[in-house]
Amino acid sequence: MSSGVCSLRWEGDALVILDQTRLPDEVSYITTADYRVVAGAIKDLKVRGAPAIGAAAAFALVLGAREALGSPRFRERVREVAAELTATRPTAVNLRWAVSRLLECLSENQACDRDLVDRLALEARAVFQEDVEGNRRLGRYGQTLVPQGSRILTHCNAGALATSGYGTALGVVRAAVEAGKKVTVYAGETRPLLQGARLTVWELVSEGVETFLVTDSMAGWLMAKGMVDLVLLGADRIAGNGDVANKIGTYSLAVLAAAHGMPFYVAAPVSTLDLSLASGAEIPIEERAESEVTGFGGRRTAPAGVRVFNPAFDVTPARLVTAIITDRGVVYPPYGTSLPGIFGA
Amino acid sequence: MSSGVCSLRWEGDALVILDQTRLPDEVSYITTADYRVVAGAIKDLKVRGAPAIGAAAAFALVLGAREALGSPRFRERVREVAAELTATRPTAVNLRWAVSRLLECLSENQACDRDLVDRLALEARAVFQEDVEGNRRLGRYGQTLVPQGSRILTHCNAGALATSGYGTALGVVRAAVEAGKKVTVYAGETRPLLQGARLTVWELVSEGVETFLVTDSMAGWLMAKGMVDLVLLGADRIAGNGDVANKIGTYSLAVLAAAHGMPFYVAAPVSTLDLSLASGAEIPIEERAESEVTGFGGRRTAPAGVRVFNPAFDVTPARLVTAIITDRGVVYPPYGTSLPGIFGA
Repeated sequence: MSSGVCSLRWEGDALVILDQTRLPDEVSYITTADYRVVAGAIKDLKVRGAPAIGAAAAFALVLGAREALGSPRFRERVREVAAELTATRPTAVNLRWAVSRLLECLSENQACDRDLVDRLALEARAVFQEDVEGNRRLGRYGQTLVPQGSRILTHCNAGALATSGYGTALGVVRAAVEAGKKVTVYAGETRPLLQGARLTVWELVSEGVETFLVTDSMAGWLMAKGMVDLVLLGADRIAGNGDVANKIGTYSLAVLAAAHGMPFYVAAPVSTLDLSLASGAEIPIEERAESEVTGFGGRRTAPAGVRVFNPAFDVTPARLVTAIITDRGVVYPPYGTSLPGIFGA
Repeated sequence: MSSGVCSLRWEGDALVILDQTRLPDEVSYITTADYRVVAGAIKDLKVRGAPAIGAAAAFALVLGAREALGSPRFRERVREVAAELTATRPTAVNLRWAVSRLLECLSENQACDRDLVDRLALEARAVFQEDVEGNRRLGRYGQTLVPQGSRILTHCNAGALATSGYGTALGVVRAAVEAGKKVTVYAGETRPLLQGARLTVWELVSEGVETFLVTDSMAGWLMAKGMVDLVLLGADRIAGNGDVANKIGTYSLAVLAAAHGMPFYVAAPVSTLDLSLASGAEIPIEERAESEVTGFGGRRTAPAGVRVFNPAFDVTPARLVTAIITDRGVVYPPYGTSLPGIFGA
């Protein structure tokens, strides 16, 4: 089973972004050579998912560097663009990681010409291509944890749309199907922005995977009724001790899984690891607009005058994470030693 | 603090129902003398909440009896109407309880005339009035469990709108405010039908109670961050052992509260008790239309081809319930003895 879904692609002089805010109603693309448009698309979640925004930011930096060609402040300007891109969303670390990779490439080359921009473009392509290949490896490692006939509860979208292709959590689902296993996915709709209902369901139904849509509040009841076997989802940043920042609601699912003795698996490439952080307490959590919660599909549903708490992510402590599935293998507790270990592998 | 909100009122020859599906956008009423319209309003959740549908069904039975006046099959016909009303929604027991009360009144009177209909109307008024008074008592008992400055997480709507007036869980909030306490309410939006966002927020904001709206998935994170002190919500049916059927999502909140060492309080009048059931496993759980989950407000959000699981309620085992707040006092475990005990009180 291959994923025909493509969150973004590089056309040499422009970046083409699938506008995920319009899915599933409309499959429409944004084609731009302006890094500012890419930065706006990241902020507005037109492109989202930790690995996908990493790749988008890498290509955006190439666009910014190309624009700065000929400027006496070329290098300074590229660093400004990098800072602007890094600031778009604070929680996912892949964005910073991808931008840093390109800045290293900048440091290693003293030129300020078209050749350098071409080198940056090569590096951005590598970020993209390595992500797709990494996801396929991650999927093969992870599918060994998915028994035949598994009923998998997932949250948000950790699919091809969230990455450069194939997906992390949904990459594991795809790899399980490719290995001949029958699996059923229960997709939590993921309020407020419904990435589960709009994106995960769209990816899976189009590939013929049996998929049930549920509201986020149903997770506990599904577990109590014995309707799901394991929880499998992605991550936006993983601290050195194995604490996991991911879409709001992930922590509730982890507590529920533990209470029901059910495995809780996190799938993420090593670019999502941030070993510079001792624990999840240091991960910045983005808070988003109140209007995301007070409305639904552009329609206001809650009365004026109400206050809103709208964190986009939460942090799940490592003790609730059964295993972390990476592109370098499956990692088990204690994460403080096993996570650094995979970099030596 | 008194609640100006009125879910329904009896005008002697007609029942006036506040159409809750149009809230908060529009405050509109349905005035009808046809029991079928009331039955439809219950099915479509225009009137909802266990105690409110009990009162609505009682008045509807009066309308049905009036329509049957003069029929040779009068008594049989009234029993048919009763069966029709009881079948509208299976989970909340107050509906059956209220209808049974009127049928008992029918059995005790051999007449088939206008006098009997007047007696039934008196009984329906009593159901309604006792509910309002019971909620006020329940509120006074319950507010003793709410410390000054409490931050309360609630789910769905257990307010004036869900009852004949004042409310159960929100009745406790109102009584705490009347007792001079400052409280803050975190209202879970309650997908799929957003009774929390639309109804609970509407009730509380209009009365000046500090209210935060959150998505249902945020509950665990609120607890982990120490932002809430207790969970307080209503019930649709409580079995003899203290198992609680309530809006889907309640069970997840109960597990989360237990994991965070937080009190989990259920507020319900004794008409919600069903001591004929040994446990919650015997409570029928209504499943509702897929379209509630695949979209909102008439707009479809999920792709076609997806399957849906849409139970309207779940069952929380008694071991997760810290206390049940009734109109006859606060009841603690073991519920198997304490619940029957309050009927002797």
